[in-house]
Amino acid sequence: MFTEKTCKEFISVLSSKDPVPGGGGASALVGAVGMALGSMVGNLTLGKKKYESYQEDIKAILQKAAKIQEELILLVEKDAEVFEPLSKAYGLPKNTEEEKAKREEIMEKTLKDASQVPLEIMKKSLEAIELHEELSVKGTKIAISDVGVGVAFCKAALLGASLNVFINTKFMKDREYAKKLNREAEDMIIKGTEKADRIYYAIEVQLKNKE
Amino acid sequence: MFTEKTCKEFISVLSSKDPVPGGGGASALVGAVGMALGSMVGNLTLGKKKYESYQEDIKAILQKAAKIQEELILLVEKDAEVFEPLSKAYGLPKNTEEEKAKREEIMEKTLKDASQVPLEIMKKSLEAIELHEELSVKGTKIAISDVGVGVAFCKAALLGASLNVFINTKFMKDREYAKKLNREAEDMIIKGTEKADRIYYAIEVQLKNKE
Repeated sequence: MFTEKTCKEFISVLSSKDPVPGGGGASALVGAVGMALGSMVGNLTLGKKKYESYQEDIKAILQKAAKIQEELILLVEKDAEVFEPLSKAYGLPKNTEEEKAKREEIMEKTLKDASQVPLEIMKKSLEAIELHEELSVKGTKIAISDVGVGVAFCKAALLGASLNVFINTKFMKDREYAKKLNREAEDMIIKGTEKADRIYYAIEVQLKNKE
Repeated sequence: MFTEKTCKEFISVLSSKDPVPGGGGASALVGAVGMALGSMVGNLTLGKKKYESYQEDIKAILQKAAKIQEELILLVEKDAEVFEPLSKAYGLPKNTEEEKAKREEIMEKTLKDASQVPLEIMKKSLEAIELHEELSVKGTKIAISDVGVGVAFCKAALLGASLNVFINTKFMKDREYAKKLNREAEDMIIKGTEKADRIYYAIEVQLKNKE
């Protein structure tokens, strides 16, 4: 289990030429780190008199955030599971027509499987961005910078995962299916980046409004 | 040592209301994860005949990348070290004029110390972005998506660290010094985000040019 490795070890094995973990799994990890910052802000808001009217909302946010974190941690492992067969498929022989056909068939199947995981990482990252939006309003102002950092990481996770969708769909023979997945990814990119940037820059302005 | 924790544990302690790790340390970690993806691309390019003319450059990139990764890992710990005294200073009493003056003096000193670390994280993230620029040209094309993911993470680390500069400079009494640090941070944001976005979107286009 990659998430059972120390942070140092994870970074070390990621930097090696081993096929896994790769950019997809790393995106899930960065999304989980982003969501954890949101959870921290929620935890710092819990029980604070100044934010009394938001206590129930904060509790609900914390529950959702914990679930997203857990799912993203699982997706780190899941991405490695689906990528390994794909990396093996790339290495299959293609000398005869028969080998070529067999390789293509296996490639197509593994590409389809391998695309689902980054799409799932994107969905969770988008949900994480939406929770940061709520936290930017209801979370304690002493940790407002952490909402900004958290949302920047969730956006990076969303984009990182999207490139792992696109590199898989690029090689699919079934272009209709490939286009469908690309459109799904593009919709989430538009929604997520617009929202994340709006939250981030509003926080940057708040922090810099001294001058 | 936070980077000796497992990824799961790091995410768990990050999400708690403990003062450290916080957004600064998390930015250093995400920067290291980003640089590790760059290193992976370098390692996948090493010894490949197709990229023969770049072998010496790739070796040099890998050396620089390993150093940046190591420094960012150290900065995760360093950020916690400088933030703890600051979080204690926030809690100092301010009932009498004497207490107020004492608190202010300690606050100013700890704010100055605590600003240096996120600035250092920004510098390393910017260097990491520059290495990704080289990798987007000289790295193996089979891992081009990983260059894009890596650079997206290094940009997020740069921005995340910048908010930790701004939240500290906001509370400094010495406004000249605060403005100087803000300008340093802003220069790196402009340089780094422009470069990172250019690299990222060029890769996104390459991956999507099928249609």
